[in-house]
Amino acid sequence: MKGKKNKTVKIIPLGGLEQIGMNITAIEYEDSIIVIDCGLAFPEDEMLGIDLVIPDVTYLKDNADKVKGLVVTHGHEDHIGAIPYVENEINMPIYATKLTMGLIDHKLAEHNMMNTVRRKIVTHGQIINLGCFRIEFIRTNHSIVDAAALAIYTPAGIIVHTGDFKVDYTPVFGEMIDLPRFGELGKKGVLALMADSTNVERPGYTQSEKTVGKTFDHLFADNKDRRIIIATFASNVDRVQQIINSAYKYGRKVVVEGRSMVNIIQTATELGYINIPKNTLIEIDQIKNYPDEQIVLITTGSQGENMAALSRIAASIHNKITIKPGDVVIFSSNPIPGNEKAVFKVINELELKGAHVVFQDTHVSGHACQEELKLMYALTKPKYAIPVHGEYRHLKRHAELACEMGVQKDHVKILSTGDVLELSEDVFEVTGQVPAQGIFVDGLGVGDVGNIVLRDRQHLSQNGLIIVVVTLERESGQILAGPDIVSRGFVYVRESENLMDECRMVVQEALDSCLERNITDWGKLKSCVKDSLGEFLWKKTKRSPMILPVITEV
Amino acid sequence: MKGKKNKTVKIIPLGGLEQIGMNITAIEYEDSIIVIDCGLAFPEDEMLGIDLVIPDVTYLKDNADKVKGLVVTHGHEDHIGAIPYVENEINMPIYATKLTMGLIDHKLAEHNMMNTVRRKIVTHGQIINLGCFRIEFIRTNHSIVDAAALAIYTPAGIIVHTGDFKVDYTPVFGEMIDLPRFGELGKKGVLALMADSTNVERPGYTQSEKTVGKTFDHLFADNKDRRIIIATFASNVDRVQQIINSAYKYGRKVVVEGRSMVNIIQTATELGYINIPKNTLIEIDQIKNYPDEQIVLITTGSQGENMAALSRIAASIHNKITIKPGDVVIFSSNPIPGNEKAVFKVINELELKGAHVVFQDTHVSGHACQEELKLMYALTKPKYAIPVHGEYRHLKRHAELACEMGVQKDHVKILSTGDVLELSEDVFEVTGQVPAQGIFVDGLGVGDVGNIVLRDRQHLSQNGLIIVVVTLERESGQILAGPDIVSRGFVYVRESENLMDECRMVVQEALDSCLERNITDWGKLKSCVKDSLGEFLWKKTKRSPMILPVITEV
Repeated sequence: MKGKKNKTVKIIPLGGLEQIGMNITAIEYEDSIIVIDCGLAFPEDEMLGIDLVIPDVTYLKDNADKVKGLVVTHGHEDHIGAIPYVENEINMPIYATKLTMGLIDHKLAEHNMMNTVRRKIVTHGQIINLGCFRIEFIRTNHSIVDAAALAIYTPAGIIVHTGDFKVDYTPVFGEMIDLPRFGELGKKGVLALMADSTNVERPGYTQSEKTVGKTFDHLFADNKDRRIIIATFASNVDRVQQIINSAYKYGRKVVVEGRSMVNIIQTATELGYINIPKNTLIEIDQIKNYPDEQIVLITTGSQGENMAALSRIAASIHNKITIKPGDVVIFSSNPIPGNEKAVFKVINELELKGAHVVFQDTHVSGHACQEELKLMYALTKPKYAIPVHGEYRHLKRHAELACEMGVQKDHVKILSTGDVLELSEDVFEVTGQVPAQGIFVDGLGVGDVGNIVLRDRQHLSQNGLIIVVVTLERESGQILAGPDIVSRGFVYVRESENLMDECRMVVQEALDSCLERNITDWGKLKSCVKDSLGEFLWKKTKRSPMILPVITEV
Repeated sequence: MKGKKNKTVKIIPLGGLEQIGMNITAIEYEDSIIVIDCGLAFPEDEMLGIDLVIPDVTYLKDNADKVKGLVVTHGHEDHIGAIPYVENEINMPIYATKLTMGLIDHKLAEHNMMNTVRRKIVTHGQIINLGCFRIEFIRTNHSIVDAAALAIYTPAGIIVHTGDFKVDYTPVFGEMIDLPRFGELGKKGVLALMADSTNVERPGYTQSEKTVGKTFDHLFADNKDRRIIIATFASNVDRVQQIINSAYKYGRKVVVEGRSMVNIIQTATELGYINIPKNTLIEIDQIKNYPDEQIVLITTGSQGENMAALSRIAASIHNKITIKPGDVVIFSSNPIPGNEKAVFKVINELELKGAHVVFQDTHVSGHACQEELKLMYALTKPKYAIPVHGEYRHLKRHAELACEMGVQKDHVKILSTGDVLELSEDVFEVTGQVPAQGIFVDGLGVGDVGNIVLRDRQHLSQNGLIIVVVTLERESGQILAGPDIVSRGFVYVRESENLMDECRMVVQEALDSCLERNITDWGKLKSCVKDSLGEFLWKKTKRSPMILPVITEV
C-alpha cells in the first residue's frame, strides 16, 4: 500500500443512522463505488398508512457507472429488505454468504427479478474484487447465521465494517467469530472501524445463544403435560434449531406457523443451516392427531404485530389454533422499543384465555455489549472510528467508548445520513451531503406519498373531516342547491343533528354575506366558508376537523 | 359485627382494570353506595384524536339517591382526573387528605365547580361515616405524598383497599406507611383485600424515595460546572423536594417549568408539603442573571409528551430555554410502557444538541413489588383477595401471589370492569354486570365520539379519502356537472394527475352504465361509484382510501 497518504476515500451512509432500520452505505474512490447492505425501515408512528421506508439512492443513480456491486453483511430486513426496490433503479451484482443469499433470492423471486440480478455467493475468508476495492468477508456471530464483517481494502487503507455482530464463543451453528483475523488486520493497520452501536449502552457481554437452549430445556421439563407455543423472530434460525432440539429431546412434534417463519425455515433447511430430525416437523392440520403435550408450535408475532400468527391466535381470529387453558406461551424475544404496548396487549389476551405466558429470561440479544465492542477496538486498533447502526444516543455513547479505547477524539465522527465523509491518513472530515431522505412505500406506490399527504392523514386522523357542498348557478352566482354538510370521523352524526344544522346555518350566513358583497371567486368563497365554520366549530367543540368546501357550478 | 354472616356487600369496579388509567370502584350495601377514586385514562394509540377517557357512571346515576360520597386515596390523575366530569353527573361529597384535596380543588376551580361540590379534608387515622359504611384513612407511601389506604367497615366485614402504595421505611416527607394498623385490622379479621398490582411482576422490594436523593447529590457533585435540567413527574412532590435539597446544598437556583409542575409545586408549597429555602426558587426570566453552573431547571416532559416543556426544549421550539453543549439533562423517571419511543426521540434530540443525558438509576417506583405485597397479605390476612390496578397479566400474577400467601384459590377473583361482585362470609361471586365502557372526551365533547367515528378516523389516517362530486338534473337524471374528484391524504396530486384522470373516467363509466340501466336511486348510484372506484384503486395502488360520493340535484 505505497503512496496511500495522498489517497482519499469517501464513506457515505445513505441510511442506518437516524433511520436505524435502513442500513445502506456507499464507499467511493475515484471511479469505484461499492454499496454495503440495502435495508428497509418500518414506518414510525407518525407515518400514517405507510408500509415501508426505503433509502433514497439518487446519489447511486447519478453515479450508476461507478457502482461495482452490493456486498451484504447478513440477511435481516434492515440490511436486505430494500434490495428489490433499489435493484430496480440500479442493477448491481450482489455478493453475500450462502444463507444471506438464500433470503435475498426469496425476495427477488417474489419480485420476479431472479433473472435480472447477478448474484454471487461468497464464503467467509474469501476476498472479492470490485473496482479498485478488495473486500474480505470475515465470520461473525449474530442473531441470524452466516453473518459477516467486511474488511474493505481501499487505496487509502483498510476499512473494517463489523455488520451487526456479537461474540459468541459457543454458537449453535457453525463457528465462532473469527477474532484472530480482526487481530491480524489490526497488526496490518486499520484505517477506520465502522462498528455496530445497538447495545453500546449495555455493560458487560451478550450471553451466548446456547444459554437460551438450556432455558428451553428447563421449560420443556417443567411443562411436560401442557401444549407449548413459542414466539420468536422468524429469522433467528439458531433459536428455531434449539426449540427443535428441545422438542425432539422431550418427544414433541413441531409445527411452524406464520408465513415469514415458514419461508425462512424452508430456506435454512434447504441450505443446510438447520437440522430437523425425521418425523419431527408436522403440518398444522396434523395437530389434531397428537395430544397437547406432544406439540410445540413455533410462531411469528413475538413483537405483537397485528397480523402475525400469535396476535391472531391471541385474538381468537386464527383459523387453526385456539388457545386452551393450560397452554404455555413463551415469548423468546424482547419487545423492540415502541412495541411494548402491543406485546403486552397480546400477553393480556393470552392470559385472559387461560394461557400461562413466559416472557422473561427467554431471549439473548444478537448485538455486542460494551465489553465486546472494546474487544473489537482492542483487536483492530483503528485510526478512525465511525459508529454505525444506532440512534443518535447510541452513536454518541459509542463515540465515547472509542475514545476510551484510545482513538483520538478528533478521529471519531458521528455521521448523519447523507453525509460525505472523506478520509485518508491525513484527512478525516465531512465535505458534503447527498440526498438521503427515506422514501415511503404505500401499497404499490413508491414515493407518491410525501409530507403533505402525511400531514393531511394526521389532520384527518385527529378530528375527521367536514365536507360542505354547494351548487351555484353559473350566470347569477346564486345558490342552486346546498349548502349540504357531510362529515366523517368528526362526531356521531345521529346524536349531533343540532350541531350539523348549526353548521349549515353558519355556512349559509357566510355564503350570503359573500354574495351580498358580490364575492363570487371560488377561492374566496371557499376560504370564507372554511374560516367561519372552523371558527364556529372550535368555539363550540374545541376541535378542528378538516373542512373541505366543494363548489359546483351548473 | 354480629350477624354479618347473612349480609352481602357488592364491589363494582367501574374502571381501573382493563383500562388501568381509570380507577373508580363502587361499594354498595342496601341503600348505601360509596365511590372509591374517580380517575381518567389517557387514550390508547388506536383512539385517534381522543383527549381523555372517563368512566361511564350510568350505574351511579341510576342509583344517585344511594350514593353517599366519594373517598379518594391519592392525587394522581388516574384517581382524581374524572372528578369534574363525574360530579357534573352525580353531585356527591368528596373526602380526601389535605394534599389530595388541594389537587382536587385545583381541578374543580378550573371547571368553576368549587361552589357546587362539598369537600371534606380527612387526616390519616380518621374514620368517616357514609351511609352504612365507616371508612378509615390509613397512611401509606407512594410517589405522591398524602396517599391513603382505606379500611371500609361494611355490614359484611372489613374491606381493605390499599390504593397505590409502596413501603418506604425512610420517606422524604412525613411518616412511613402505618404497617401496625394493617396488622391490627388483620387481627380483627379482614374480609377482603383489594391491593395494587402494578409491580407484582417485580421480585424484591421497591427502593426508598431517598435513594434518588443520594443519586442527585452525586450527579450535582459530578457536574459542578454545568447547567442541570431534570425532568420528572409533575406530581412527585418528594422528588422535587429532593432536587431542591441538592440544588440548595450545591448553591444552585431552581427554576420550575411546565404548567402542571408549576401548579402542583404551588399547591404543595401552600399546603406545607414542600419546603423551599428562601431565595432558591427563581422565575424563568431570571435565568440570564446567573451562570449556568448555578441553575437547575425542573421540568415536565419526562415521558416524551409532545407538548411538554422538555420536548419543546429538545425540539428547539421552547421560547425561553435553549439547550447548550455541556448541559446535563437527567430523566428522573422510567418510560411508562408505550412511551419508550417518544422518550428516546427526546433523548436523541437533546444529545444531538450537545447535552449529556442521564436516564438510568435516577428513579424509583411508587408501587409495591412482590415482597411488599406479601407483607400486606401477611399483615391483613384477608379471607378474599381482589387484585386491582393493573392489566390482566398483573392481576393474574397477583392472584397467584395471593394464593402463595394462603388465600384459598376460590377466594381470589380477577374482576372485569363492570362486574358486580357479591361477597359475604359465605358468598364470593360475580352476579351481574353494569355498564362500564370508557367514555371518550374529544375537545369539549364528552361521549359524542364513539366507535364508528373512530373507525372512520382510522380509515382516513391509513389511506386518506377521495370525494366524488356529481350534479344531476332533477327531471332527467342526466349529469349536469362532474364527476369531479377531490382527494386528501391519498397521493400527492400534482405528481399523480394521470391517476386522478383515470379515477374520473372510472367514475364516469360507472355512472353512465347506471344511467343507461335507468338506475337513478342515489343510494345505488353511490354504491356503484364506490365499488368501481374502490376496485380500480385497489388493483392500481393496493390502497383503499375512503370514497365519499356526493350527489347534488338541481
